[in-house]
Amino acid sequence: MDYQEIIEEVYHQVQNLNLKGNVATYIPELAEVDPKQFGIALVDLKGNVYGVGDYQVPFSIQSISKVHTLTMVFHKFDTQLWYRVNVEPSGNPFNSIAQLEYEKGIPRNLFINSGALVITDALCSKFERPTEQISDFINEISGKNCVNINQQVKNSEKSHGERNTALAYFLKSYKNFDNPVEEVLDVYFSHCAIEMNCVDLAKSFSFLANDGFSIFANRQILSESHARRVNAIMLTCGFYDEAGEFAYRVGMPGKSGVGGGVAAVMPHKFSIAVWSPELNEKGNSVKAIKALELLTDKLSFSLF
Amino acid sequence: MDYQEIIEEVYHQVQNLNLKGNVATYIPELAEVDPKQFGIALVDLKGNVYGVGDYQVPFSIQSISKVHTLTMVFHKFDTQLWYRVNVEPSGNPFNSIAQLEYEKGIPRNLFINSGALVITDALCSKFERPTEQISDFINEISGKNCVNINQQVKNSEKSHGERNTALAYFLKSYKNFDNPVEEVLDVYFSHCAIEMNCVDLAKSFSFLANDGFSIFANRQILSESHARRVNAIMLTCGFYDEAGEFAYRVGMPGKSGVGGGVAAVMPHKFSIAVWSPELNEKGNSVKAIKALELLTDKLSFSLF
Amino acid sequence: MDYQEIIEEVYHQVQNLNLKGNVATYIPELAEVDPKQFGIALVDLKGNVYGVGDYQVPFSIQSISKVHTLTMVFHKFDTQLWYRVNVEPSGNPFNSIAQLEYEKGIPRNLFINSGALVITDALCSKFERPTEQISDFINEISGKNCVNINQQVKNSEKSHGERNTALAYFLKSYKNFDNPVEEVLDVYFSHCAIEMNCVDLAKSFSFLANDGFSIFANRQILSESHARRVNAIMLTCGFYDEAGEFAYRVGMPGKSGVGGGVAAVMPHKFSIAVWSPELNEKGNSVKAIKALELLTDKLSFSLF
Amino acid sequence: MDYQEIIEEVYHQVQNLNLKGNVATYIPELAEVDPKQFGIALVDLKGNVYGVGDYQVPFSIQSISKVHTLTMVFHKFDTQLWYRVNVEPSGNPFNSIAQLEYEKGIPRNLFINSGALVITDALCSKFERPTEQISDFINEISGKNCVNINQQVKNSEKSHGERNTALAYFLKSYKNFDNPVEEVLDVYFSHCAIEMNCVDLAKSFSFLANDGFSIFANRQILSESHARRVNAIMLTCGFYDEAGEFAYRVGMPGKSGVGGGVAAVMPHKFSIAVWSPELNEKGNSVKAIKALELLTDKLSFSLF
Repeated sequence: MDYQEIIEEVYHQVQNLNLKGNVATYIPELAEVDPKQFGIALVDLKGNVYGVGDYQVPFSIQSISKVHTLTMVFHKFDTQLWYRVNVEPSGNPFNSIAQLEYEKGIPRNLFINSGALVITDALCSKFERPTEQISDFINEISGKNCVNINQQVKNSEKSHGERNTALAYFLKSYKNFDNPVEEVLDVYFSHCAIEMNCVDLAKSFSFLANDGFSIFANRQILSESHARRVNAIMLTCGFYDEAGEFAYRVGMPGKSGVGGGVAAVMPHKFSIAVWSPELNEKGNSVKAIKALELLTDKLSFSLF
Repeated sequence: MDYQEIIEEVYHQVQNLNLKGNVATYIPELAEVDPKQFGIALVDLKGNVYGVGDYQVPFSIQSISKVHTLTMVFHKFDTQLWYRVNVEPSGNPFNSIAQLEYEKGIPRNLFINSGALVITDALCSKFERPTEQISDFINEISGKNCVNINQQVKNSEKSHGERNTALAYFLKSYKNFDNPVEEVLDVYFSHCAIEMNCVDLAKSFSFLANDGFSIFANRQILSESHARRVNAIMLTCGFYDEAGEFAYRVGMPGKSGVGGGVAAVMPHKFSIAVWSPELNEKGNSVKAIKALELLTDKLSFSLF
Repeated sequence: MDYQEIIEEVYHQVQNLNLKGNVATYIPELAEVDPKQFGIALVDLKGNVYGVGDYQVPFSIQSISKVHTLTMVFHKFDTQLWYRVNVEPSGNPFNSIAQLEYEKGIPRNLFINSGALVITDALCSKFERPTEQISDFINEISGKNCVNINQQVKNSEKSHGERNTALAYFLKSYKNFDNPVEEVLDVYFSHCAIEMNCVDLAKSFSFLANDGFSIFANRQILSESHARRVNAIMLTCGFYDEAGEFAYRVGMPGKSGVGGGVAAVMPHKFSIAVWSPELNEKGNSVKAIKALELLTDKLSFSLF
Repeated sequence: MDYQEIIEEVYHQVQNLNLKGNVATYIPELAEVDPKQFGIALVDLKGNVYGVGDYQVPFSIQSISKVHTLTMVFHKFDTQLWYRVNVEPSGNPFNSIAQLEYEKGIPRNLFINSGALVITDALCSKFERPTEQISDFINEISGKNCVNINQQVKNSEKSHGERNTALAYFLKSYKNFDNPVEEVLDVYFSHCAIEMNCVDLAKSFSFLANDGFSIFANRQILSESHARRVNAIMLTCGFYDEAGEFAYRVGMPGKSGVGGGVAAVMPHKFSIAVWSPELNEKGNSVKAIKALELLTDKLSFSLF
């Protein structure tokens, strides 16, 4: 059985399960998305693309972009950054400020909001035009000019951004934030408002399945050792408060976003993006997670 | 024995105890204050003033001003405000953001920073020129143009204000903050930077010992019932994380500030202000608290 | 207007308000109590008794007995005990174990379960037959053999006592518990299962309104200074997570129990017990609290 | 380069680093262990054993036994058990009771003390002579009668067991504990007091590297899918509050114990046990963790 058959089978099995969830409602743009949409795109290490359902429809990748921004500063900062943010899974919701206080301004990991803000802050220190350079980078590793920043989504996030603003000032009070809050938040909301389809998103994760080398950019994006470490971080921290459950049921390094997308990799095999807007109460797409669980059950290889 | 003799005796007993603490250091203006200063002023209900030590030296009243701002909105808001802030003692440090998250954006009481920000926000909604009107109000109830806002202190607080800014945005994320953050913080830092001496501060608390009537303003500032309630709040919440200890050892409603001041009242008897810059680890003046403890031991009346 | 008229007026006003709550249900004996019962007894400093409603019906005093046990060790331990338990109001539910962990085995105050267990442990160290001696003590200060330990309630509490057992072992792990857990819990469940009526309960609190002297025992129970301190503790910590609210609305030192009773004092005036089984969500009797609020509104004197 | 060369190289590199930590001191038996000891044993899927240093010296495996007990109930309980315990990484210390309260009596994962107690409780419900049967099981999968329960260690743990007793009663208060506390704790302290050397311990983990089949017991211990899931749990939760760091630096599923041991697996390749008593501040062996980090750097395969 080849990948195309498998993802189609998974697609239909999930559709038949009639899973229910709720689309994100904190901004109108996400609330208005058609909740029925569901797509899967798998990209193998030769660049072959397999797709099913709404896999060519662009969607808001939201927090999945945190993997891209992390990658952009990973090779530049290496050790320095580890004094500013940890890599431990969090036992609290993604936007909790309590744990940040308890841990004295050092975010518990890179994917909770406070940690991602530190990464974006570091990125603003290193790049002249950070927002454009993030787009350029993702375009490069997807092998295509595919990135579109939805300005309406960005503005909407901004106008509901009090909590992230609070997190940024809180980090600043602990001297763990170098650039002006407004400036960093603008970059942060921009990269969270990126829209891509499943194919391009899966391609942009390909280097993580390939020991750091992107066949689309045709260059080594991260060293082999760094690529493995990003995967380790995704496995332990990529699914908010549900990372353990995802490792347990699926066992692939991945990252989810509140737009209903999940991007994941099976090292040395393939990268994959699944999208469906309805979320479970932990903020992860119900269909995407089920699809990945069924997929790993069907495949003869596993991380473990 | 009259009040003058008693406070002099208390003053000398405290001086002999050789108590040690640390002055606040988060802003240079407070760090540079001469730590040896110590003054007591007691004002009875007829307006007689008794003083000892540095009781005529102006100092930064800091959080003590939160009693004044609370009073200014107490009669205007009454019931509405209670949906926005509680009156329960806090088991956490005065600037904790964790508890605010746990209680979903409703500050636990009016004197921790988040609660005081709600009060200042309410005040900004009700007054046109809030900073001036706060000064005017305190001048009125002290019977003298005594209020001076130290601009250097204010600017210093502002430039170290990230944590309060975080609290304000966090409140805003819970829709518990109506005005622009910058604007409210400017008023907040202004009233915290007020300088007064012990005499004027004690006078400004006189109405709370007198069922709401200020003999200096010659008018009813709060209703009898409201004045009692402000006293109840001071007793349970006036000393940060040490309110229980203060109630236990002293038993007077009062409020302390990080500048080393304490203002307190013995209902139907007198109001008092004590000031000495060295603080214990809870942020309360070591000498002021000891003085008030010795004072209530010597006096034949007590709250309890 | 005399006390009898006032409490009758209060009684009828409260009855007309049709307040609703829920009786405690964690043990069958409390769940089966007739929820409509409501009684008030006030005892002045001369020993005159004023009563209305079900003021002569015995009820389970539960946590109110913690004031009696505290009194029994207060004069014996004084300073030593303060290393083992604090007097700060708690921002958490009465049986929280989290705060105990956060504060490294030192209960935040004497009335939350962990703190009361430390007191009962101290009592077990000092008395040979602690359970009997608690009964003897309460009988003495009520001036009557009125104490009955309801064995069914005690056994029921015991068979649902896992959480208190956990608290005791947790205290032991911090070396803040001297006697065998089983033994102390037996005494603890015994004193919580004491039944008394409003009159006797009010009499047993009389010494706290009278600078430590009990007219029923005809002796000084606590020094004047200690009596004041017990009152201060009741004011700041006597009503679980609602102590601030009670101080604010009522302003009397008091202690509530999950059986629906409240005992309180107006220093130098009277002691009072109010009982009605329906509780609010904080575990305090809705009618008792309302009655005390109306009472202090009607009386011309106040703590503040 | 073969395994023997690699582990010898790792051994010497680690020895040269002169790493420092502290042996566990909460019981005298662990405090008295010679801190200089250090051994590594690697077992490949054919059963070949490679060893270096003190790899044949028995040591107290402590929490590593939780993997064995989990395995014993994993196939029996499957779905039922998941209502009683989660698989999420914990952001708190291993013996925290606060998180257990916050999550209402459902331990966050199977390896923190509360979760392991639930597993041992489940084991006591299913087995007649649980302590012996745990020994029998470990002997079977190690292919040798190697298990020795050190009675002195067990008794010492018991006499310092107040915190675990508190956790057990706390679980019972949430109805998440079926058997008598004393009985379960006896089994728990027994399996934590097991002594084995690195070789036997590595053999006992072999089935987890081998899709559930133990070549030493010559039978399928867990289904392929269950074996993978145990590995996933070890990866996300196996190193207390340092699981993310271990996944990041080492990337192997494993479990550590306070005796200084670590057992880990590289799926489809080998199992390994490393032991050295000095611990870092998170409670994991400093030398064992460094050795595993160097080992995965040297090997050409990785989980990610």
